[in-house]
Amino acid sequence: MSLRIKDAPIGVFDSGVGGLTVVKSLRNRLPNERVIYLGDTARLPYGTRSPATVERYAVQNANFLEAMNIKLLVIACNTASAIAHGRLRELQPSLPTLGVIQPGAKQAVRTSRSGRIGVIGTEATVSSGAYAKAISGFNPAAEVISQACPLFVSLAEEGWTEHEAATRLIAERYLEPFQGGRVDTLVLGCTHYPILREVISEVVGPDVALIDSGDALAEEVAILLAESGQLRSPDVPGEDQFFVTDAAQRFRRVAELFLGSPLERFDTVEL
Amino acid sequence: MSLRIKDAPIGVFDSGVGGLTVVKSLRNRLPNERVIYLGDTARLPYGTRSPATVERYAVQNANFLEAMNIKLLVIACNTASAIAHGRLRELQPSLPTLGVIQPGAKQAVRTSRSGRIGVIGTEATVSSGAYAKAISGFNPAAEVISQACPLFVSLAEEGWTEHEAATRLIAERYLEPFQGGRVDTLVLGCTHYPILREVISEVVGPDVALIDSGDALAEEVAILLAESGQLRSPDVPGEDQFFVTDAAQRFRRVAELFLGSPLERFDTVEL
Repeated sequence: MSLRIKDAPIGVFDSGVGGLTVVKSLRNRLPNERVIYLGDTARLPYGTRSPATVERYAVQNANFLEAMNIKLLVIACNTASAIAHGRLRELQPSLPTLGVIQPGAKQAVRTSRSGRIGVIGTEATVSSGAYAKAISGFNPAAEVISQACPLFVSLAEEGWTEHEAATRLIAERYLEPFQGGRVDTLVLGCTHYPILREVISEVVGPDVALIDSGDALAEEVAILLAESGQLRSPDVPGEDQFFVTDAAQRFRRVAELFLGSPLERFDTVEL
Repeated sequence: MSLRIKDAPIGVFDSGVGGLTVVKSLRNRLPNERVIYLGDTARLPYGTRSPATVERYAVQNANFLEAMNIKLLVIACNTASAIAHGRLRELQPSLPTLGVIQPGAKQAVRTSRSGRIGVIGTEATVSSGAYAKAISGFNPAAEVISQACPLFVSLAEEGWTEHEAATRLIAERYLEPFQGGRVDTLVLGCTHYPILREVISEVVGPDVALIDSGDALAEEVAILLAESGQLRSPDVPGEDQFFVTDAAQRFRRVAELFLGSPLERFDTVEL
């Protein structure tokens, strides 16, 4: 029996483990869906690559997932979303393709009362201005303050989260531009950052709403699938599948921290 | 007029900017020599890649430099030294090829009185056991304590060095195994770490000698060139040349911090 389109998996790719926080968001919001995840660990990090290189990698990742008959493609990487989203839609106009930036920006604009919105991310994401542009698209009067926090990625991968004094100091330094009521909403513009959510929240205080782009994206995926009648039937068996392009052992170790549970089916592929 | 072999440049490669601390060591020790540097920024970091992948990249980097008529090849990357040194020597037996691990290990053994030696490096370098093996080769009775310090790379690239409280806290945590006289010598087994030398030295205290593998390597290069009559004539003009495989702007910015001076000739290449 061939799979009905609505029961097909959602394809998700990222440069590494970060996108697993997006998978976690998808699982929370859409527990019946099945995910095929590709972590392009052989070529991470995307954040320090040139745009042409990131676009080429994104197209290869998308081709790999499309060959597995996915019904929807998620770019669970802010850098790739900023650079390659348009190109991927152009190449496969019939496949719904969502990045993390538009949903995160939209939810930030909906949440903010003052219109003053903070964005944190990798150097590449921040210097691309992609969130600022997307936020302006939803509210041209919004004021955006951005800050790159490169050390957050290593801290998240080390698992040095809320109980670590160094993490707290680093967060205080990076998040200084958002103190004193200068923003009322802060976008976690890197898929690693939800791991540090607690310490970020403590530093910016209770008056700043944190936007997890992965959660925002999962909400949009849920709406899109529901509206197009593509929600998966709860009674179809199936497991999530995970692929990496290199260094599988390291990925597996960090993955459990990001996903909150062990990986099920897990393989290495060459692109 | 064709260049005499002794006036040919030294080829140096690393996965990124880290190897520039080795170039700095070479400049200090051998100011007349000329260097051609390749930072394989398109494929960094090597520390999280599989051995087969690192070996393939190292061979491509070496081929690029060999085509520029170098007289000596330096693997200024601990991961590549640990994994690919043997293979590179096999492929080009007539080209003297030095990695950073053997010189660092040798100098550590010469320096240590107690025979208890510490090694810090990336996860890949530490789990390869390459320093421990090299140290045993020089002193089978030596006792080696190793510790991976993954955050040090980001801290060095951020330029958060001695004056940063977070750096101090992170160093205290990572360097705890070396406290209390447990070692008398500590190898900086990652080319990024000399940037953090001061804070590392403060944390481990004055009774622990720090070994900079780049300095140790520069010393061996100096001896090798002198013994083979290959030291460059001081009157031959020429500048150092730097190549990267991607993201040149980011490299240039961090490079000045690592090299201690601006880059002269600088280009992007595709391998």
